[in-house]
Amino acid sequence: MFTDRQRFFMAAALDEAKQAAIIGEVPIGAVVVHHDQIIGRGHNLREHSEDATDHAEMIAIREANATLKSWRLVDCQIYVTIEPCPMCSGAILNSRLPELFYGAPDVKAGTVDSLYQLLNDDRFNHQVQVHQGLLADEAAQEMKTFFKAARKRRKAARQANKK
Amino acid sequence: MFTDRQRFFMAAALDEAKQAAIIGEVPIGAVVVHHDQIIGRGHNLREHSEDATDHAEMIAIREANATLKSWRLVDCQIYVTIEPCPMCSGAILNSRLPELFYGAPDVKAGTVDSLYQLLNDDRFNHQVQVHQGLLADEAAQEMKTFFKAARKRRKAARQANKK
Repeated sequence: MFTDRQRFFMAAALDEAKQAAIIGEVPIGAVVVHHDQIIGRGHNLREHSEDATDHAEMIAIREANATLKSWRLVDCQIYVTIEPCPMCSGAILNSRLPELFYGAPDVKAGTVDSLYQLLNDDRFNHQVQVHQGLLADEAAQEMKTFFKAARKRRKAARQANKK
Repeated sequence: MFTDRQRFFMAAALDEAKQAAIIGEVPIGAVVVHHDQIIGRGHNLREHSEDATDHAEMIAIREANATLKSWRLVDCQIYVTIEPCPMCSGAILNSRLPELFYGAPDVKAGTVDSLYQLLNDDRFNHQVQVHQGLLADEAAQEMKTFFKAARKRRKAARQANKK
């Protein structure tokens, strides 16, 4: 269903997600690819940067814009480990990215398939070809492990406060 | 319907829109207000920065995050001259902005009232109080004047090419 090349790029996005987990950020990663070359990459940085717009996709898109010296990401693909939120779906539309690969769905905030299908609404001036499920288990497992550890830390903190 | 104070802040957003028009960017402006003080302001910069995410709202939100040293814009309002697109609606949700004032609707890409109502979907973890219509005529007029001039320039360029 997916090529080795596509797996390679999603693995790079997954590495970004793991980098986020290491520093305690929600583990989502993204890369933007142009003619088989990674020209933008990012992982969530919101807690460190205190910037609400610092999602993985936004950072990768902005870096790709800077690399190409163009806000139009034609002939590019974006790979994201988790289904994009409204902001990131919007940035994908605004940068005219023609193609999105994402791993696992986000049933709470995903706006590509789960809650809305923003990338395939022909009322907007751009539509995106979407491929879902690439390294989905690995992407979902990163999130699961992260939130399980976070819950454990919170529980331990509560118990320490009681003592 | 609106207070003098609210008009004052929307006029500041409108000044940002006018600044955009002067440099040839689509004239949309935004300010973020915290306890009656403007802590973030922005206008479209996409053509100059070649950054697809450089919409007025995004720039204002990021500046407000930096000012407050927090990604959470609690106790803040955002004033925007034109109804926000999906990306900017998403950034308003992600920054937990409790209140939005916008001027004129964007029937082609607006996702607050026109095409979607993203800011009042209780499936997301945040909802926004929305006020529409503040200095709407002035905001719409800025856009109208801008696009009329742009069409005129394109027409003149086509005729010059024919000669």
